[in-house]
Amino acid sequence: MTSPLVTAIHSRDNAFVKDLRRLAQDSTQYRKQGRVWVEGDHLCRAALTRGQRVSIAVFSESFWPLAQVEWALAASKTIVLSDALFADISGLESPARMGFIIELPAATALQPDAATVVLDRVQDAGNVGSILRSASAFGFRQVLALKGSAALWSPKVLRAGMGAHFALDLIEAASLEDLQPLRVPMLVTHVHEGDFLHRAELPWPCAWVLGHEGQGVSAELEGRASRRIRIAQPGGEESLNVAAAAAICLHASASAR
Amino acid sequence: MTSPLVTAIHSRDNAFVKDLRRLAQDSTQYRKQGRVWVEGDHLCRAALTRGQRVSIAVFSESFWPLAQVEWALAASKTIVLSDALFADISGLESPARMGFIIELPAATALQPDAATVVLDRVQDAGNVGSILRSASAFGFRQVLALKGSAALWSPKVLRAGMGAHFALDLIEAASLEDLQPLRVPMLVTHVHEGDFLHRAELPWPCAWVLGHEGQGVSAELEGRASRRIRIAQPGGEESLNVAAAAAICLHASASAR
Repeated sequence: MTSPLVTAIHSRDNAFVKDLRRLAQDSTQYRKQGRVWVEGDHLCRAALTRGQRVSIAVFSESFWPLAQVEWALAASKTIVLSDALFADISGLESPARMGFIIELPAATALQPDAATVVLDRVQDAGNVGSILRSASAFGFRQVLALKGSAALWSPKVLRAGMGAHFALDLIEAASLEDLQPLRVPMLVTHVHEGDFLHRAELPWPCAWVLGHEGQGVSAELEGRASRRIRIAQPGGEESLNVAAAAAICLHASASAR
Repeated sequence: MTSPLVTAIHSRDNAFVKDLRRLAQDSTQYRKQGRVWVEGDHLCRAALTRGQRVSIAVFSESFWPLAQVEWALAASKTIVLSDALFADISGLESPARMGFIIELPAATALQPDAATVVLDRVQDAGNVGSILRSASAFGFRQVLALKGSAALWSPKVLRAGMGAHFALDLIEAASLEDLQPLRVPMLVTHVHEGDFLHRAELPWPCAWVLGHEGQGVSAELEGRASRRIRIAQPGGEESLNVAAAAAICLHASASAR
């Protein structure tokens, strides 16, 4: 195997550096560039394990000599940045020392019979990432995000997802019409109405719909749902965090299989 | 009732403004000042509903004429800040237009027989806030945070908690010794060992222990637990977000009562 091509960059004004900075700091830039910035060893390892194609491996200068050969060989092209430049590009408070640029996975077609999570304008990157982790943990392989949800491949959602992205089929910027082919029963949570989750007989596979942090699931989407389910909250508070509610619902479905 | 004293401030260098800025932006400042910054109408309403004593009500200049009388009368002292100053003080991307300064609730003594959540160095403010919401929703009235956990009354945790703080007895900066008096059985989640949650007979009341995002629950604390419980993850991922795991466990306990 030939040694990969290694390029050292020290200038902030380098064109590659400028593109990478946008990719790392702007949540929707990946859509324009068609590629994704995956930062830190945990995420990069998850990407490799799941067979993602790495376009470019990026290392900080001080870490490069310590990098595992496996990582350096993962990409046909390797870029080494000065530590200051790497820190400047990273969106993290504690920047990692390496990252991969991978191709944005091609959009997959909706699988009508797959266990699915539908995100109806869930806004917070941490919530979306946590929901992707729960989906992957509980065997929901397909996640469809309606327009207005956080950008799934943004650096913040990727970080919160902890690698779950690479185990899922993700569809984003979807419209309500895109949900039409779905044949599995659609369940929505409701604060005051519906069957209590802990007593409900849950269908499998199914699609759980999770709504906007403030407004919940839209009336139109709720109207299309097969069932409304509520989570008993004996403590008296009126609402859970959406990612907490998602975890409870997806776990209940997985346990009922 | 006499009209409350209203003071208008326009200077960034005003001593009150400087203290408030620290309180709103520094996560542990409340411990030094013995008071808490509660920003935005949702949180302020939750504080009032739960009988918190408001020391000072703070309004932006443009919102002040529109403020509800109830809010203006909640505090014996009212401060009106120019809009620019309010935005500068706020830690939020979209600053609210009003907030309360409340006294830091006095530390409560540990209740040995109460349903309890123990935070073992949970770091992320969003996670801690979400766990407080779940605790409150599922009837766990007592939360004890061990040293190394996120500061419970920090602005970020308060925001993520959505008012749950005011419904709970919170103990923070606790040591393992502080847990000694606890008489309810202590449960920890484990990735590979213990009874599966969905089949376990759960005791009530109990204490759920939730651990550090990367390291989990410390070995010492795990050694003190009565039982290890695992969450079945048929999808194959190895870990859930800690707030997601917390929601699942607390809901299971509440459903088993």
